[in-house]
Amino acid sequence: MIERIAILGTGLLGTSVGLALRAAGFKGEIAGWNRSMEGGREALAMGAVDRIATDAIALARESEVVILCVPIYSTLDYMEQLTGVLGPGHLVTDVGSTKAQITAAAGRLFNTPERAAFLPGHPMAGKERGGAALGDANLFRGAVWLFTDDPRWQRSPRGAELAAGWRDLVVAMGSKRIDLDPARHDELVVWVSHLPQFTATALSALLEEQVGDAPELKHVGGRALREMTRLGASPFSMWRDIAHTNTAAIEAALLALEQRIAYIRENLRTPALREEFERANTFRRE
Amino acid sequence: MIERIAILGTGLLGTSVGLALRAAGFKGEIAGWNRSMEGGREALAMGAVDRIATDAIALARESEVVILCVPIYSTLDYMEQLTGVLGPGHLVTDVGSTKAQITAAAGRLFNTPERAAFLPGHPMAGKERGGAALGDANLFRGAVWLFTDDPRWQRSPRGAELAAGWRDLVVAMGSKRIDLDPARHDELVVWVSHLPQFTATALSALLEEQVGDAPELKHVGGRALREMTRLGASPFSMWRDIAHTNTAAIEAALLALEQRIAYIRENLRTPALREEFERANTFRRE
Repeated sequence: MIERIAILGTGLLGTSVGLALRAAGFKGEIAGWNRSMEGGREALAMGAVDRIATDAIALARESEVVILCVPIYSTLDYMEQLTGVLGPGHLVTDVGSTKAQITAAAGRLFNTPERAAFLPGHPMAGKERGGAALGDANLFRGAVWLFTDDPRWQRSPRGAELAAGWRDLVVAMGSKRIDLDPARHDELVVWVSHLPQFTATALSALLEEQVGDAPELKHVGGRALREMTRLGASPFSMWRDIAHTNTAAIEAALLALEQRIAYIRENLRTPALREEFERANTFRRE
Repeated sequence: MIERIAILGTGLLGTSVGLALRAAGFKGEIAGWNRSMEGGREALAMGAVDRIATDAIALARESEVVILCVPIYSTLDYMEQLTGVLGPGHLVTDVGSTKAQITAAAGRLFNTPERAAFLPGHPMAGKERGGAALGDANLFRGAVWLFTDDPRWQRSPRGAELAAGWRDLVVAMGSKRIDLDPARHDELVVWVSHLPQFTATALSALLEEQVGDAPELKHVGGRALREMTRLGASPFSMWRDIAHTNTAAIEAALLALEQRIAYIRENLRTPALREEFERANTFRRE
């Protein structure tokens, strides 16, 4: 049903999408484009794409489904460029970590009977380091793939068909689909993704200052320290756009965590500490 | 050289010590005692101990090396009880997570030529849940085992020999030994162990409040969320004594983290955010 897929951006996520589509048995063409030729060549060498194109916009026109696997502001830029060159026979989708701005742009620029369809998506999967070389056919297995579709959109029949086809491919890659309102999406991911990331960044930066000059002591911490700081390796290039497009919700969550830590600090010797541990235990209970 | 070892407390750590000693080829007797008979029976069934004694003090007298694998205040209690009943032919050691009070008690109650020797120890290994059933012969493999020995102590010749023997067994179990001053120990573990724990507790308790009523959303976060909250399952019973015996240092570290998170919150849209990510990246660079 879908024959030609274009992956714009063959970093960790784009490369993993290509590999996962192949592992799921997708038989059509998968073409890639990447800002740096080196990353594109790596994705090609790994078998994530069949070829690497040199012109992203021309590649998008030749394809039926275009997957934007680039940071959020680049996604918004491509949406502006693609709306004029694509038509009702195209579907564009994305993997951006915040959805309010992208979904608003999708309603403004796509999703009429005459225009290309746009299905805003967000796979809850990644690694703390980027790049095609870490691409993984199993990255999306067991992960949740969030969509912030708007039921009021009037897509072309072919656009609607391609969107349904892409939803099926997401399941074929091993993900569980959940549909959310875009505002609710951005509020929710603050708690389960953005807050853990910025917490790990703060903790890692503080530890670098405190014990960074004694590398032998970094290893004293063991698994607990390793896990609590693993996300400290995450690239700024990706998180900058998230911080810029979900600022108010992230600020509120960080402030709530500051207050929670202060509460523990003030109660290290009172019965309230037991209650905090019990609340934390409850969160981890299945 | 060491023929009879007693493990007082066959929870996760005590059971793991027994299993690791056997895996390392220790041929002597390993006897256990546990506050609850159920935990003792489980350690026995797993082969971590050869027998379970019903009287901890009598068992300690019969043994050459006594390993206290109980919370910190219980360790301090046993030290008071054992000093009068043991003599220069005994070594006592422990696995407590803070070392200033235990090391001070070791100097006051042990480590003279007429008394038992006491070697304060702290393996940097554990799991977020306790109990004999999770005991693991490989728990200490690759971990650091900290000692806060005092070179001024005058041990009996046999006590010194047993302490050297225990240090060798720690290496045989796969650990790397590091000697630290007790005050420096308590300062260091705040950063690499206590701060990560209380951060995970605060984050988990906050998330329980925010998304705890929507269990399907807990699973949206994936590996990042799982790792950042794993320590949320840690038992209060163990951490209470740590909070009580290292309060000032933990307070200072928590306050520093609150300030660090506030700094990120205030700079979500400024170049300072890039610097924080770079500092965090540096901590994770090998």
